[in-house]
Amino acid sequence: MKKLILSLAALAAAGICASAQQALGPGTGLVSPEINPDHSVTFRYVNRKAITVKVTGDFLENQRVPAEMTEKDGVWTYTTAPLAGELYSYSFIVNGERTFDPSNIYRNRDVATWTNIFTLSAEPGDKGWYYETHDTPHGTVSKVWYQSPTLKTYRRMSVYTPAGYEEGKGKYPVLYLLHGSGGDEDAWLDLGRTAQILDNLIAEGKAKPMIVVMPNGVYYNQAAPGADKNMFQPTMANSRSDSTVEIEESFPDVIKFVESHYRVAKGQYNRAIAGLSMGGRQSSAISRHYPGTFGYVGMFSGVVVANGDNDPALKAQFDAKPKLYWIGVGKDDGVKRNSVILRDYCVEKGYPVEYYESDGGHIWRNWRVYLTIFAQKLFK
Amino acid sequence: MKKLILSLAALAAAGICASAQQALGPGTGLVSPEINPDHSVTFRYVNRKAITVKVTGDFLENQRVPAEMTEKDGVWTYTTAPLAGELYSYSFIVNGERTFDPSNIYRNRDVATWTNIFTLSAEPGDKGWYYETHDTPHGTVSKVWYQSPTLKTYRRMSVYTPAGYEEGKGKYPVLYLLHGSGGDEDAWLDLGRTAQILDNLIAEGKAKPMIVVMPNGVYYNQAAPGADKNMFQPTMANSRSDSTVEIEESFPDVIKFVESHYRVAKGQYNRAIAGLSMGGRQSSAISRHYPGTFGYVGMFSGVVVANGDNDPALKAQFDAKPKLYWIGVGKDDGVKRNSVILRDYCVEKGYPVEYYESDGGHIWRNWRVYLTIFAQKLFK
Repeated sequence: MKKLILSLAALAAAGICASAQQALGPGTGLVSPEINPDHSVTFRYVNRKAITVKVTGDFLENQRVPAEMTEKDGVWTYTTAPLAGELYSYSFIVNGERTFDPSNIYRNRDVATWTNIFTLSAEPGDKGWYYETHDTPHGTVSKVWYQSPTLKTYRRMSVYTPAGYEEGKGKYPVLYLLHGSGGDEDAWLDLGRTAQILDNLIAEGKAKPMIVVMPNGVYYNQAAPGADKNMFQPTMANSRSDSTVEIEESFPDVIKFVESHYRVAKGQYNRAIAGLSMGGRQSSAISRHYPGTFGYVGMFSGVVVANGDNDPALKAQFDAKPKLYWIGVGKDDGVKRNSVILRDYCVEKGYPVEYYESDGGHIWRNWRVYLTIFAQKLFK
Repeated sequence: MKKLILSLAALAAAGICASAQQALGPGTGLVSPEINPDHSVTFRYVNRKAITVKVTGDFLENQRVPAEMTEKDGVWTYTTAPLAGELYSYSFIVNGERTFDPSNIYRNRDVATWTNIFTLSAEPGDKGWYYETHDTPHGTVSKVWYQSPTLKTYRRMSVYTPAGYEEGKGKYPVLYLLHGSGGDEDAWLDLGRTAQILDNLIAEGKAKPMIVVMPNGVYYNQAAPGADKNMFQPTMANSRSDSTVEIEESFPDVIKFVESHYRVAKGQYNRAIAGLSMGGRQSSAISRHYPGTFGYVGMFSGVVVANGDNDPALKAQFDAKPKLYWIGVGKDDGVKRNSVILRDYCVEKGYPVEYYESDGGHIWRNWRVYLTIFAQKLFK
């Protein structure tokens, strides 16, 4: 995946046919971004009228200081330093207004923000490599509706079944993977690259084949935008605590549906739960609320706590002998303190806990890494 | 689905948390678009520096003449006339530059163009109503990879299985539904609203429960952008004829995979094939190339022809007694002539053909309608 290939001839053909489907947009025939042989990246943008054009994104050391693009014959360009393998987000800033790269259709939505993205792999096995599709067998991703008796509504979940599931007869363990506030059942797939990460880890023999269930964790929605019966503008307001309580109470509906509709190996050592941010809190709370249900628990930048000085639910959870209680957080994350308090509490009580501290903050770049690490520890 | 609800309180909460996940974008706290009780629609946009702001979209009689938005206190607004039920696309034009409505995350990509969208239903059963999610059982949509021995690569298809498929043991007929040039296996779901249309038609008893298979119809890609192993900028260049020949030759790989992985009723009267534009040509060609395979054939704005004055393949196809040979096209469609020639040829030869002519041109608005009509005629 080295280049966005877009020949002028192809573009011309598209232009000729543009009236055929809906009109093509402001495509310019440029290649942008172009990933160069040294893994630097060149952005290009055509605008003869602009006074200033800048590019910002998470390839920069400091996104608050966008890079100035330089103009020649109406084409603005900027080339980065060589970059490490990663999924990167970026935007152009034209005369002070944030806009998209019209030459790049790859865009992700995070809560209510769309940005351009690209992936880059500098060498096999780096982070970017895990987020890309390779010539290996691929799992299936399904959008599945179930009826929640507790929430009294149809709700949607995403389900990843590993390569071979359809052809075989075996039973599989399940990872329940929860999104953050403002997210939905698409988030771990679109922003988290879950299907690619699992495909690649499983193909390499680094993770056990498993089913990954990604439910919608906002009780007052049914589904992601576009599938929900209402149009709504997502916000992070659903991080308020009552949203997670409803999900905790209704979570057995999810497990019951999955275990009656898929070939699932049962028992706590075939069940893992993990989530990011709000989903980390939900993973902590659900696994504590139903002790002995999950043998593996992952809290990624979770807003997690022990319930007071002597948490009987957490004691009951550890009395049931989970195999893994894993806390991952970035050293610059605003909620790091919660993770540290919970870790220290577990250490004090003699509960086995794994703590992983990365660079960086409360960002998807970290959550993809935590999933990659966590998935390799499961069901072994 | 009457309003995009976005309270200022929620937005403020989102703003407070914006540093938590990736930064929120230029959300303004406005509701846009707002669907009013009379089914007019109000667009709103905040920009204190702009000199002109216009809105264009397919709600206008003539999209070449955008509507002028008017400004008060930095908020630009425009209210449409009352609109009929439909899925609408629109863009803002700020100082002559096309941009997005930052208050509306709903966006569709058509080939290489992203636009804002919204759905509107003025009354139950209108077009917009069929494109929305209602409180009925829902089918499952899966992204499935298969190995194509003919094309010697992994390829991806989208599969809709109707509500009840997972719980039951019965066998289902299959509609193979093909996209146009520049499209992919996501197009019929995202732009065509296939899952919603089928869910609603089946729930009403107007269509038979069926599986819908939407393969990728571009032989040199594996999958849609984001899932393919290469990043690529889609163009309509793949409408060239060799692209469709490869798909015709490899189509048995698709059928074989589907019939060995799903509970499928076999025989031509349990198989339908339809497609739009390039996919219409492919449907015409594949059904002719494999006579007796498809009992139902739909060509939506298809670039279709009879092969010369005496088409033996078409004769063989009709000798096998298909139940339906359906041609749909818009009266303003640039490829209408092809449809008329094929229809007239069939009439001359005494082949039973159904011809449906709608208003409008070569656009998704028509293809959604053709699918809605065609699906009701299948497997009865």
